Amino acid sequence: MSDLEVFWGSGSQPSWRVLLAIEVKRLPYKSHLLSFSAGEHKTPEFLRLNPRHQVPVLRHGDYVVNESVAILTYLDRKFPEVPLFGRTAEETGSIWRTIQEFAHHVEPALVNGVVRPIFFNHPDAREGIEAKVKEVHVELQGYEAVLAGREWLVGNALSAADIVVFPQLMGLLRAATRPAAEGVKLDLLPFAEKYPHLAAWVARIQALPGYENTYPPHWK
Amino acid sequence: MSDLEVFWGSGSQPSWRVLLAIEVKRLPYKSHLLSFSAGEHKTPEFLRLNPRHQVPVLRHGDYVVNESVAILTYLDRKFPEVPLFGRTAEETGSIWRTIQEFAHHVEPALVNGVVRPIFFNHPDAREGIEAKVKEVHVELQGYEAVLAGREWLVGNALSAADIVVFPQLMGLLRAATRPAAEGVKLDLLPFAEKYPHLAAWVARIQALPGYENTYPPHWK
Repeated sequence: MSDLEVFWGSGSQPSWRVLLAIEVKRLPYKSHLLSFSAGEHKTPEFLRLNPRHQVPVLRHGDYVVNESVAILTYLDRKFPEVPLFGRTAEETGSIWRTIQEFAHHVEPALVNGVVRPIFFNHPDAREGIEAKVKEVHVELQGYEAVLAGREWLVGNALSAADIVVFPQLMGLLRAATRPAAEGVKLDLLPFAEKYPHLAAWVARIQALPGYENTYPPHWK
Repeated sequence: MSDLEVFWGSGSQPSWRVLLAIEVKRLPYKSHLLSFSAGEHKTPEFLRLNPRHQVPVLRHGDYVVNESVAILTYLDRKFPEVPLFGRTAEETGSIWRTIQEFAHHVEPALVNGVVRPIFFNHPDAREGIEAKVKEVHVELQGYEAVLAGREWLVGNALSAADIVVFPQLMGLLRAATRPAAEGVKLDLLPFAEKYPHLAAWVARIQALPGYENTYPPHWK
């Protein structure tokens, strides 16, 4: 059988999702870490895989698919154990509800409202960031309440919902420690005090076998 | 077995997706058409189903799920025929890639960049709309090229990809006929001349049994 091949980028949260899914399923794969600064996502070879020149991309023999969540669905159907999208219709629906609500109600504020402005370090972005992080806190409190009662976001096992949310939360926590975040009232740290159940969930994911293979190299 | 119950709104594109999926699967259901103007999406009863007070919501006995795409996954797992997410892993991955690319690269420009500004009728929105509709045309040309070679967006059968895209395209075409669109260079009409393959695809969906039950009542 052909190897799985993952084309990914360091610090790309969508890429991180794919690596986590592959490690959770204990699948062998060939890693292609692209250098954005070297333009490796815009070579003719890569544009044939994804004309939108975005990572991650999965190649499996002749089959090529992009978009992190789509890659997760392919992997889960091709390699059903361990299942990432639930064992019942009810679990499936709730996992997708969590993924879609994250995309619609959390990710825009978290990524565009907080993380990117901190990394771009706009001097007049502070007020906008502080307004957006409040929206993020409302959603984090929702996860905190869920995780007070169980170990994973949906049902009683790790699922795609955890895998989709986790890398973006890690990006948020990393942003909070950047010099550009000094003087910005984020109220995220120390995270284990502010959100003990979410912090325990983060630790559970970090303890997964193979986790270290997924951690963004340039964050080390 | 409990009835399926759908809580939906007229002219809500996400609601339309759910109605289409239910009709395609020929499932009986109880319809709850909410009146936004009467605030029926903010009653205590509805907020118990979805605290975000958004439609659509599906209730099936004790199980409740919101987010249109999540509802589609529940329906597909609970009632596998006809399958909406593919018969193979490759089809599943490609259907989700189409859904995710639509959400990331089409929907923001189409909904926020074109349709809403036309309906809100801002007098100085014309230039912004004309810039955004160009982005939409790039994506429509992509669909047109796909549909030149086959009847449905992915594979050889109707799938969730078609069901996710269709209502938003209908919203775009309706916006193009509004008085507020007069004088705005949209280049969408006559649609069958501009996009013959997409227009044929629209006609195929409109010919599905039960389609008339899904059409927004206040558009009639």
